[in-house]
Amino acid sequence: MTRTDSPALAAALRTSLPDGAVLTEDVERYAHDDAEWADHATPAAVVLATSLDDVVATVRIAGEYGAPVVPRGAGTGLSGGANAMAGAVVLSLERMTRIVEVNAAERYAVVEAGVLNDDLRRHVAQHGLWYPPDPASQAISTIGGNVATNAGGLCCVKYGVTRDYVLGMTVVLADGSVARLGRTTAKGVTGYDLTGLMVGSEGTLGVVVDVTLKLRPLGGREDRAIVGWFPSLADAGNAVAAVSAAGIVPAALELIDSTCLRAVADWQGWTLPEGAAALLLAKVDEPGAAGEALADRVAAFFEEAGGTQVERAFEADEVDRLFLARRLAYPALERLGPVLTEDVCVPRGAVPEMLSRIERIAREADVVIANIAHAGDGNLHPLIIAPDGDDAAKARAKTAFDRIVDECRALGGTVTGEHGVGLLKLPGAAAELSPAVLAMHRAIKDALDPRGLLNPGKAFPAAG
Amino acid sequence: MTRTDSPALAAALRTSLPDGAVLTEDVERYAHDDAEWADHATPAAVVLATSLDDVVATVRIAGEYGAPVVPRGAGTGLSGGANAMAGAVVLSLERMTRIVEVNAAERYAVVEAGVLNDDLRRHVAQHGLWYPPDPASQAISTIGGNVATNAGGLCCVKYGVTRDYVLGMTVVLADGSVARLGRTTAKGVTGYDLTGLMVGSEGTLGVVVDVTLKLRPLGGREDRAIVGWFPSLADAGNAVAAVSAAGIVPAALELIDSTCLRAVADWQGWTLPEGAAALLLAKVDEPGAAGEALADRVAAFFEEAGGTQVERAFEADEVDRLFLARRLAYPALERLGPVLTEDVCVPRGAVPEMLSRIERIAREADVVIANIAHAGDGNLHPLIIAPDGDDAAKARAKTAFDRIVDECRALGGTVTGEHGVGLLKLPGAAAELSPAVLAMHRAIKDALDPRGLLNPGKAFPAAG
Repeated sequence: MTRTDSPALAAALRTSLPDGAVLTEDVERYAHDDAEWADHATPAAVVLATSLDDVVATVRIAGEYGAPVVPRGAGTGLSGGANAMAGAVVLSLERMTRIVEVNAAERYAVVEAGVLNDDLRRHVAQHGLWYPPDPASQAISTIGGNVATNAGGLCCVKYGVTRDYVLGMTVVLADGSVARLGRTTAKGVTGYDLTGLMVGSEGTLGVVVDVTLKLRPLGGREDRAIVGWFPSLADAGNAVAAVSAAGIVPAALELIDSTCLRAVADWQGWTLPEGAAALLLAKVDEPGAAGEALADRVAAFFEEAGGTQVERAFEADEVDRLFLARRLAYPALERLGPVLTEDVCVPRGAVPEMLSRIERIAREADVVIANIAHAGDGNLHPLIIAPDGDDAAKARAKTAFDRIVDECRALGGTVTGEHGVGLLKLPGAAAELSPAVLAMHRAIKDALDPRGLLNPGKAFPAAG
Repeated sequence: MTRTDSPALAAALRTSLPDGAVLTEDVERYAHDDAEWADHATPAAVVLATSLDDVVATVRIAGEYGAPVVPRGAGTGLSGGANAMAGAVVLSLERMTRIVEVNAAERYAVVEAGVLNDDLRRHVAQHGLWYPPDPASQAISTIGGNVATNAGGLCCVKYGVTRDYVLGMTVVLADGSVARLGRTTAKGVTGYDLTGLMVGSEGTLGVVVDVTLKLRPLGGREDRAIVGWFPSLADAGNAVAAVSAAGIVPAALELIDSTCLRAVADWQGWTLPEGAAALLLAKVDEPGAAGEALADRVAAFFEEAGGTQVERAFEADEVDRLFLARRLAYPALERLGPVLTEDVCVPRGAVPEMLSRIERIAREADVVIANIAHAGDGNLHPLIIAPDGDDAAKARAKTAFDRIVDECRALGGTVTGEHGVGLLKLPGAAAELSPAVLAMHRAIKDALDPRGLLNPGKAFPAAG
C-alpha cells in the first residue's frame, strides 16, 4: 500500500466536508474497535459523516490520494473489522442517526447506519413493530455495524440474524458512486441478491449509509423463561440436545459456565449454588397455553438432564431477572483483565464435546477461559482472559484462541458464527475456505473495488 | 457470440460423458422452459448429468468450444431462465435425484439439484422435519431450479423463501472448478455470503449441483383454513390489508379472482356463489387455542370487509378441500389457451389498487387476465390468456404484460416477486435497476464468468 500524504489528504477532506467533520488530532480512539488484540494503527484522518454526500466525498477524496477507507459504526466489533491501518481514513457513520421512515402497514423501517440497535427497537415499538436481531451489544452497537458483520444475537435461534431482516440499503461504492439495492416489498428477485452480498462484507465492498429493515409485529408473543443449574457442562449440553431433538425451537437458549458465573457473582455479591458448573437460560414466546406447555417441556428436559433448581418466570421483570446473569457476564469478565473473545459455531450436537475440548485447551495453554454460548444454535463464545500487562499470558491466550478455532473446524464447525472475520479470524478463514472459494472472494472484491481501497485486508484472507 | 461447431462439440461431450448422457436428436423439448413466449432456439446438445463429474466435464468442454451452457432443472420456470440459445449446451440436472444426507439432530438435508421439491418434502417428513418453501410447482419442480430462481410459494408469507433455507451448496464455476459454499451449522459468517449470491442468480454465475437445506421441525403446527367470498376485488384487498394491519402473519393468504374461479368451476362442474368477484383463502398454523383465536380474528376481518359464506376448516382433508381451487387455478386456465404468467410484487397495501389497474389494462388491451395472488405479501400473478394461434391476441397480451410491469413500478413494486428475471423480465429489470446497480451486476458476472458462457443474457440486462 502506498503511504499517503496525510496532511494533504486531511486538507482535501476539510475542503469538501462540513466544519468539524474531519479529525486529525486525538484520533487514537478510532485506531481499533473492541479487538485491540489485533493489529491496528493510528489513522491519517477520521471523518464523522452526517450525510450521504459526506460519505461520497470521503470515498472520492480518499481514492484520489490512494488512501484506504475504514468504515466504522460504534466500534463495538470484536474481530478487528474496524481496526485502522497506517494512512487510512476512518469513516465513522456514528453521527448518521436518523430514522428516515417507519412504515407500519408494510412493516419496514429505513434508518441511517449510525442508529443504535436499541434506539431502532424502541422507536419501532411505538408503531407496534419489532426488530428481532439482538446482539449482546444492542445498547451500544449501530445498525450499520450490525449489517456489516451480519450480527446475530440471542433470539436468532428462532428469529434469524441481521441478514434475514435487511430488505435493501444505500451503499457508496469504491468509486464513490451510490447504489440503492433491494426493495421495500415483502418479496422480490429482480437481479442478483446484492443486498445479501453486502451484509457481512465488513465494509470491503461498499460503505452502508442507510438500511431498509423488515420488521415483525410486536404483539402475539409472551415471553416465558426457564433456567436451570447443571453439575457439569456435559449435562447442560445434553439438555440442549434434548430440547433440540424434541423439535422445540426456543426464542433463546443460552449457556453460561461457572467461570462466568463466579465473575458475575463476585461482582454483584451473589451466592451461587454449590457445585454448579453451568447455567442454562431458555426462553419460549408462544402465547397462552401453548407457551405454558412448551415451557413445561423445556423444564422437564432440563430436569431429566440433571438440572437442579429449575426456575420458571412469566412476568417481564422476572424474565429479565433470570436473564440478568447473561447480560452481566461479559462486563463482569472484562473486570478481570483484557478479554480475547472467541466466536465459533459448531453443530448443535457437538456443543458438549466442544466445551470439553475448550476446557482441555484452557488447562494445556494455562489460561482462564470462560464460556458464554448461544447453545441453541451451537454458537460458542469462549472468553480468554489474560492479566493486564502479562505478555507471556497474552501469547498463551493467542495460542488457545487458535487451538479453539482448530477444534471447531475438526468438529465440522465454522470459524465465526456472528462476529465476522475481521482480522482475528483471517487464519481460520484461510483454513476453512477452499482455494476455489477464496478465488471467488478475490474476484468479487477486485470487481467492485479494483484498487483495494475499502477496508483492505479484512473479511477474507488476501492472496497467499 | 461465436457460432459453435456443434457436431465436434457433441462428439467431445460424448467422449467424456457416460453413454446416453448426451442428446442431439429430438432436443426441441429442451429448447425452452414453461415460458415459450420468450425467445428460444434448439440447443446444439443436451447433457443429462448424473454426477458432479458430468457437470464439470460439460462446463469444461463447452468452454473449450466457446459454447454457452444453459443449466436446467425440470423446465417449469415461467420467465425463460432455462430457454436455450442457438449453439448452446443445455445441462439438465433432472437425473441428479439423490438425497445425500438428512441430519435430523442438526435439522438439515443435502440433496442433489434434480430432487423434486415434493420428494424432498416427503422424505424429510419421515425424519420429523419440514422443508417449507412451497412453490405452486412443488410436485414437478426441482430444488436446483427452486434455488436458481429463489422460488417462493404460499407459505413464504410466514416462513420465507428458498433463500432463507439454503445453508450451502456445491457449485461448478465457469472455468469448471468446483466450489463448496456455505456451512451446515445454524449460524456462520465466514467470508462473503456467496451462497446467497448464487441463490436466484439463474445459472449465470455457476451450476448448482447439490444444496444443503435448513429444515424445520415438522410438528408443532396445526393448520386452520379460513375462506371467504368477496363481492369485489377491492373488498378482498381491504380484508388482506385489515389482517396485515392487525399484526397477523398468516401461514398463507391467497386471492383468486372470478376469472380463475369460473375456469375452475367450468372444469370441475362446481357452482359458484352469485356475484362472487374473488375468493380469499387464509391459513393459520398456531397450535391449540391460540390458533383457534387467530382463525376467529381472520374470519371476523373477512366478514367486516364484506366477505360472505366465510368457512372454516381444521381437519386436514377439509383444509385441503378449501385450498383445492387454488391448486386447480393454473391448470384450469391453461385449458383456455396459452397463458402468459405475470409475477409482480407490490406493497401489501397496494394490492387492491394494483388489481384495479390490472382490470383496466385487461379492458384497454382487450385481453383476458385472471388473477392469482399471494395477497399476504403483495405478490400478484396476473395470468394473461390468448387464444391459441391468434397472433394479434398474443401481441396484445405482450402489451398488457409490459403495462402491468409499469404499473407495478409506479406503485413502488418490484418487477418479479418470485419467478425470476429470466428473459421475460429483462426490460422490467432494466427499468428497475439503476445504472450503478447494473454495473455491479456486470462486474460480478465478468469476475466469475469472464467469457460469459453460463446462461448468457439471462437474469439481468446486458450492457445497453
